[in-house]
Amino acid sequence: MTLEHPSALQPEMPPTRWGDPAHVTGLPDGVRDLVGLVFPIRDTPARSDVAVPQPRLGDEQVAGLRAIVGDDNVSTDDALRRRRTRGKSTPDLLRQRTGDLSDAPDVVVRPAGHDEVVAVLAFAQQERIAVVPFGGGTAVTGGLVADADGLSGVLSLDLGRMRGLLALDPVSSTATLEPGLRGPEAESLLAAHGMMLGHFPQSFEYATIGGFAATRSSGQSSAGYGRFDAMVVGLRVATPRGEVRLGSAPANASGPDLRELFLGSEGAFGVITEVTVRVRPLPEVKEYEGWRWPSFAAGADAMRSLAQSDLLPTVIRLSDENETAINLADPSGIGGEESAGCLMIVGYEGTPAAVAAKRAAVTEALGALGGTSLGAAPGESWAQGRFSAPYLRDSLLDVGVLVETLETATFWSNRENLYTRVRAALEETLGEGTMVLCHISHVYATGCSLYFTVAAPGGEDPLARWLPAKAAACEAIVAAGAAITHHHAVGTDHKPYLTAEIGAVGADVLRAVKQAVDPAGILNPGVLVP
Amino acid sequence: MTLEHPSALQPEMPPTRWGDPAHVTGLPDGVRDLVGLVFPIRDTPARSDVAVPQPRLGDEQVAGLRAIVGDDNVSTDDALRRRRTRGKSTPDLLRQRTGDLSDAPDVVVRPAGHDEVVAVLAFAQQERIAVVPFGGGTAVTGGLVADADGLSGVLSLDLGRMRGLLALDPVSSTATLEPGLRGPEAESLLAAHGMMLGHFPQSFEYATIGGFAATRSSGQSSAGYGRFDAMVVGLRVATPRGEVRLGSAPANASGPDLRELFLGSEGAFGVITEVTVRVRPLPEVKEYEGWRWPSFAAGADAMRSLAQSDLLPTVIRLSDENETAINLADPSGIGGEESAGCLMIVGYEGTPAAVAAKRAAVTEALGALGGTSLGAAPGESWAQGRFSAPYLRDSLLDVGVLVETLETATFWSNRENLYTRVRAALEETLGEGTMVLCHISHVYATGCSLYFTVAAPGGEDPLARWLPAKAAACEAIVAAGAAITHHHAVGTDHKPYLTAEIGAVGADVLRAVKQAVDPAGILNPGVLVP
Repeated sequence: MTLEHPSALQPEMPPTRWGDPAHVTGLPDGVRDLVGLVFPIRDTPARSDVAVPQPRLGDEQVAGLRAIVGDDNVSTDDALRRRRTRGKSTPDLLRQRTGDLSDAPDVVVRPAGHDEVVAVLAFAQQERIAVVPFGGGTAVTGGLVADADGLSGVLSLDLGRMRGLLALDPVSSTATLEPGLRGPEAESLLAAHGMMLGHFPQSFEYATIGGFAATRSSGQSSAGYGRFDAMVVGLRVATPRGEVRLGSAPANASGPDLRELFLGSEGAFGVITEVTVRVRPLPEVKEYEGWRWPSFAAGADAMRSLAQSDLLPTVIRLSDENETAINLADPSGIGGEESAGCLMIVGYEGTPAAVAAKRAAVTEALGALGGTSLGAAPGESWAQGRFSAPYLRDSLLDVGVLVETLETATFWSNRENLYTRVRAALEETLGEGTMVLCHISHVYATGCSLYFTVAAPGGEDPLARWLPAKAAACEAIVAAGAAITHHHAVGTDHKPYLTAEIGAVGADVLRAVKQAVDPAGILNPGVLVP
Repeated sequence: MTLEHPSALQPEMPPTRWGDPAHVTGLPDGVRDLVGLVFPIRDTPARSDVAVPQPRLGDEQVAGLRAIVGDDNVSTDDALRRRRTRGKSTPDLLRQRTGDLSDAPDVVVRPAGHDEVVAVLAFAQQERIAVVPFGGGTAVTGGLVADADGLSGVLSLDLGRMRGLLALDPVSSTATLEPGLRGPEAESLLAAHGMMLGHFPQSFEYATIGGFAATRSSGQSSAGYGRFDAMVVGLRVATPRGEVRLGSAPANASGPDLRELFLGSEGAFGVITEVTVRVRPLPEVKEYEGWRWPSFAAGADAMRSLAQSDLLPTVIRLSDENETAINLADPSGIGGEESAGCLMIVGYEGTPAAVAAKRAAVTEALGALGGTSLGAAPGESWAQGRFSAPYLRDSLLDVGVLVETLETATFWSNRENLYTRVRAALEETLGEGTMVLCHISHVYATGCSLYFTVAAPGGEDPLARWLPAKAAACEAIVAAGAAITHHHAVGTDHKPYLTAEIGAVGADVLRAVKQAVDPAGILNPGVLVP
């Protein structure tokens, strides 16, 4: 079963912005006013008149690729190459806006399935062409920026034709999905069988199954449905050395779990061509609500208590004081004296009976811990806007506001230290007028993620302002002993900090695996592996 | 904090048997009668008069080791070397009983901590001595049988002096434990703080924290507390190339999860010197009960339903018809017409409120699925005998009954196929008079484990009868596409089947990692890595 119209559900994103061009809205007046009080607003329109660099591959190489996947599925079109250049981080968008297309791939190739991927990899190895797997193009840590040094060019391996639901096992509750399926497409195919995956990252509308696996994505319902890597029970991976098929059982003791080595491998160890995931019945009920806490620490302690009691709802997220104030400035917020403190969104999904039981137990626990219920309005407001933040970022960039996000994770006892260090690093580097917002959106019994949003005056060169701030934040994360990324992946942006986290021997292990599966070094070179 | 009397809690096991010699009981009359009806009973006493082979290491090598860990912590004593020979599988015991000590280590070395382990590994690399980490000595798949070919000898690295609780973080609910702690010792140290690990494999009384991590152990409370690998959030590993410290956060997207590469590495990638695990408050209530199902399939479907509804109790295990009949032949069983069908043990642990809520929900679900409650008696009987099966095995071996266990795991839709194939392979190979019992003791949303117990007439050479049966069972597992082991590990016994499960490229990856961390090949050579 395959989607008949691969592009029907979402149009392709423009190179300089997020999402569906038809959905772009200007900055809401309220937000524009608020932002205008803080930042010197300045319109900075994007440039679209810059040519992409001349393709580096020879005609025979392009012909060789056409022979594998067919003429229609190999393109050196400039507009397409521009859209396949980098991902959707703020630096990526700023580079596109200023016309820096130096990382454009030389050719875009669309294989039809696993076997064509294998053939493309064999050809690329022979011709020494870098291969960059491309799913939704939503990478935010430089994972689509291959280093072609010493190679003959860069091939963007567009997985957009690999969008099938290959198998559904209702007894085992598993589905085998192709990597090019976007979030809504995968859910739509499963919903036809009454099933759901339940992975809803902010990039849901564009990001793909292969990308979720390759980057260890985590979605907004992770408290209830788990991280994406925790949903995966099987993988098929094409490497230049041959295929890898993993997943003999949900769990086993057959040595190291090699699934966990290809999950998070970011295209550097192979191209993920099939992903088998746990699926669930579609929830009959979805209820989201708001809670207020006197402080970020009080709300975090409540999340910790729920997680350590194995009493987590489906969704749980907590904004710090700054983010709460900004959220509540939104017209759909709740305003008034309730804008004090910190807003928590709690969501329940499932059967009516399961939702009622869980909601009763969680409500009792949160009340006892000092939370104040705010009712359904904040929850519904969150649910309505849950995928819209990247559109707002575009509108802010349009008026000269530098805005970007970054995230990390740590154990509970280190949460406050990490929070303080990262905030201070960002504020000190970006200087006056900087706003740092934070939320916790993924919790575990032993720790949590911290997700920061930064807004600051963009100045003449927002990119030059951001890069040192990002470096300072990364150094603060390393100094705090935390994870350089909780769900955005390593890419090229975080690679300088990875060795500090996994150690020199850990880095050696990654290099050894890379050498074993990709001896010619063609797979997403420069990404991930230190 | 370290246990003051390392050996106080359990005496060392004898080489030919399981457990505390003071706890050995003869075969109960009921069981002897039952077994006598099926097998020709024949006493086969063990031999203890065989000398271990001459140690291969030179005096200077032994002196070098003494210089690292102190004179008292290096031993070439024959009795100790005999006790450090192999593990506790039935083949291991049969070889010990017949006096085959060809796998005896040449020297036993007891390091005091991580730094001494590092120094021992450096010395062993220089001298080309194989290093076999030794925790509880409970290995059942040949994980303690290193291949010293091309090396100067075998060093048994006894971790019995590394038994500390190094850190307890009550906020994050984590504890850092040394690898030599046996199960009861770790629980005792945690219980002093009101905390629990909650890992109770059958080998609990002897097996160690390091072994749990190195073999991906799974305990009898896995439904409630998870497999051991799922409890681990951090690891410190000594390798000949230096140390590896992993665990920046409960979960992250910092590339592949290298914890999952050292978990299950069976001493072949390094010596695990510290394990940081999630801990929990000690349960206030523990309730175990029995349920009867009309068939193994009906009971398995009920387990599947609970797992797929995220409604698992703390303990859930289901015996097939054969195992149920044997269990119920035990004087503490329930007998009568209730011995028909299949027995399920269900256990609840936690706070009174949590246990009551879970028990009510599970009871309603199991009743609706066709189960019949048998009350507390079968549950209490199971809890009392939960660690005693290996003693019974010794008593059966004593009278000439060949008895051994093996286990596997698969997805739910393949459960019956796997069960049928493995049973047939064992019955066909061992012939008339063979009893194959099976239970499911670890369940997931997408699948489960199958644990087989085999009893057959031992004949003149029980080992020669068992090895082809084990091979046939392994081939059946491979043919069914299942995991060659769910929680016993690969060792040397399952190594011939590992490549079928992880593929040629997967095997290459293991070899590449091995080469990166252990270029001289001294770490448990011959174990795990194909």
